[in-house]
Amino acid sequence: MAETRSDLTPFLAKLDASRTASLALAGATTDRKNEALLAIAETLRSHVSEITKANQADLDAGAASGIGEALLDRLTLTDARIEALAAAVLQIIGLADPVGENVRGSTLPNGVRISQVRVPFGVVGAIYEARPNVTVDIAALALKSGNAVVLRGGSAAENTNKVLVGLIQEAVASTGLPAESVQTIDDFGREGARALMRARGYIDVLIPRGSAQLIQTVVTESTVPVIETGAGVVHIVLDESAPVQWAVDIVHNAKTQRPSVCNAVETLLVHAGAAERVLPAVLSKLSESGVTIHADERAAALFAPTVPACEEDWATEYLGLDIAVRVVDSLDEAIRHIRRYSTRHTEAIVTSDLVNAERFLNEVDSATVMVNASTRFSDGGEFGFGAEVGISTQKLHARGPMGLPELTSTKWIVRGIGQVRV
Amino acid sequence: MAETRSDLTPFLAKLDASRTASLALAGATTDRKNEALLAIAETLRSHVSEITKANQADLDAGAASGIGEALLDRLTLTDARIEALAAAVLQIIGLADPVGENVRGSTLPNGVRISQVRVPFGVVGAIYEARPNVTVDIAALALKSGNAVVLRGGSAAENTNKVLVGLIQEAVASTGLPAESVQTIDDFGREGARALMRARGYIDVLIPRGSAQLIQTVVTESTVPVIETGAGVVHIVLDESAPVQWAVDIVHNAKTQRPSVCNAVETLLVHAGAAERVLPAVLSKLSESGVTIHADERAAALFAPTVPACEEDWATEYLGLDIAVRVVDSLDEAIRHIRRYSTRHTEAIVTSDLVNAERFLNEVDSATVMVNASTRFSDGGEFGFGAEVGISTQKLHARGPMGLPELTSTKWIVRGIGQVRV
Repeated sequence: MAETRSDLTPFLAKLDASRTASLALAGATTDRKNEALLAIAETLRSHVSEITKANQADLDAGAASGIGEALLDRLTLTDARIEALAAAVLQIIGLADPVGENVRGSTLPNGVRISQVRVPFGVVGAIYEARPNVTVDIAALALKSGNAVVLRGGSAAENTNKVLVGLIQEAVASTGLPAESVQTIDDFGREGARALMRARGYIDVLIPRGSAQLIQTVVTESTVPVIETGAGVVHIVLDESAPVQWAVDIVHNAKTQRPSVCNAVETLLVHAGAAERVLPAVLSKLSESGVTIHADERAAALFAPTVPACEEDWATEYLGLDIAVRVVDSLDEAIRHIRRYSTRHTEAIVTSDLVNAERFLNEVDSATVMVNASTRFSDGGEFGFGAEVGISTQKLHARGPMGLPELTSTKWIVRGIGQVRV
Repeated sequence: MAETRSDLTPFLAKLDASRTASLALAGATTDRKNEALLAIAETLRSHVSEITKANQADLDAGAASGIGEALLDRLTLTDARIEALAAAVLQIIGLADPVGENVRGSTLPNGVRISQVRVPFGVVGAIYEARPNVTVDIAALALKSGNAVVLRGGSAAENTNKVLVGLIQEAVASTGLPAESVQTIDDFGREGARALMRARGYIDVLIPRGSAQLIQTVVTESTVPVIETGAGVVHIVLDESAPVQWAVDIVHNAKTQRPSVCNAVETLLVHAGAAERVLPAVLSKLSESGVTIHADERAAALFAPTVPACEEDWATEYLGLDIAVRVVDSLDEAIRHIRRYSTRHTEAIVTSDLVNAERFLNEVDSATVMVNASTRFSDGGEFGFGAEVGISTQKLHARGPMGLPELTSTKWIVRGIGQVRV
């Protein structure tokens, strides 16, 4: 670490314990890890009242400090939500264990055999906000992929997370794996979060989950390698040849099926040659579902009611029932707009023109690019990965929806019988 | 970028030109990229005197400022070395183009087709020291993998690099690809290097090549994702059952075949039960080749001449004809030593015990782990990748010897016929 300060000693001792635990986890069989996951699910189910009691304390504190209804909702753990968390842990038992997978290999001309195999990262750090479900999710995913995990949850969920981590540690230890496989550093406060970002050599990879601001802070401050997940200013382009029904269905689904998530559409770009034919039906269907339409002048001329779109709208991730709409004169202009404002998460085109479809797929540089499908499909569960590890918006290591293999590294195993290099 | 300063405007304009060039490169066919590589090789061959003249200016300045013989040697481009550089570029023409490779894919239950394909990173940054050969190497590797590249070479090679980059740009432009595919920011000095490390959004990935100190600076200062290549404090363990001949041959080859590189062995750990039987022959062969032996007390008791090993030796990458030797009481002690001092690059064990071999492969957490083979095999060329992109010592994205595919990212391509999410 760059700065070593005396008051970091207990903090670093905790990270050392994570490293030691990671060695046991790396060698644990899939059966053993699944036993631990089963124990976690069972302990969640048998401690519902203890969890909800701690959660109530957080909710009371949150209400008193006026954190707002949306945050309070994310913070809340009901009996049903705890059952859903336990069910999610059980589902992870069913996923293939990525550790030990032989990625590639060969025999060299001199007879030396090389193979690249998947291994856990070691110690994964997670920094997130007041969502206690992330505590259980990340712990279970890390465990299955053979990683120890160090959690830093939001202070608003401190009581809930403390109980959850305590239960998880007991469950893990009951199956013979180290309790320190899952640890929280919430007791070190903001100073702990900062130290975690500088804990190069202690933490192998850091995953921030939460607001764009949180992710930006972690990306900028961290000397530990980061997997950036996140914000989606998602675009749909309605090409000149867009079939009306596809346009209506896809845009409506992408905006309203679950507006609060990162793969929901935020900006609609419509080719001028299709605007009159397609836009009224598309916007009318959105409007019926309560979507506020932030339109540029040319779009506003074709549909009412709208509110005027300003420069800021093009860069906004609404995460709600709002959409920005702009009429463009060409596919080139649409692609230029995307290059300028996109967060490179997911973009789609609705078209029946093959050449334009291929151009869009090739020229738009986003984690997921789509033709004639809802952007809501850009998701690990939908892609068949079974678990929602997050959606990476960076280009290094993992890009787009991540599954368990993205929580692993690899190592090269080389076997010889005395060969030396000539 | 976190800091935008007015005097950065020309710097950022240069990076913008790299981004624009990267769009053309991403869409370039393999044939077109190979044409550019051929043109680069030809221009190097036809401008030998221009290159050596610029190089002589750097060598004179280096000699005057007393940079030392080893650095002067690395800085030197002779006619033969320029021919070798041209030949290396021609070899890259023969490598498979990673761009467009279909990594995996499937058809979802609703008929939506998804596929993950390799795409270039976009703009790659490289920060390195006074080795003008890196300028040509990295430019050629970046070009083949469809990336634009921004180079920051050491100031000691400034004249040489300026001529090389000029020639490369002319060659690239002569085939219709943008000259800005390859750019240098050497004219912005140290300030430029610093700005490059903070150019998040402009540079997709940064690759430092050079001393441990350079790499450490880049890793700590950079907000751009980094692929860390580098230092190798490489260990060989001679197990209790180590066959003498294998031990002698492998250690000698790993130390002396090319001592100045990162996969050369630096520390030898010998099981106490094998020390008397194996160590004299191993050290005698090293000594004959002029290797200085830094021995702990128990090793020194079995062989002379040695110099005493101190704590510092265990953490030293000698990169020369020196080796540290320690006698350990068990395989556990050897593994603990490696955990403490290794840079996690490459480690090997010499053994005829199957259980100990498997334990070593599983428990040593390094990019390459070996049984009964020289550590000098931990190399992209030896692994059959055809090109030497570097050896990653980090766990994210790439680990161990890298080939062209490690210079790419992926994107998900999704094709539907109007499907929406239920």
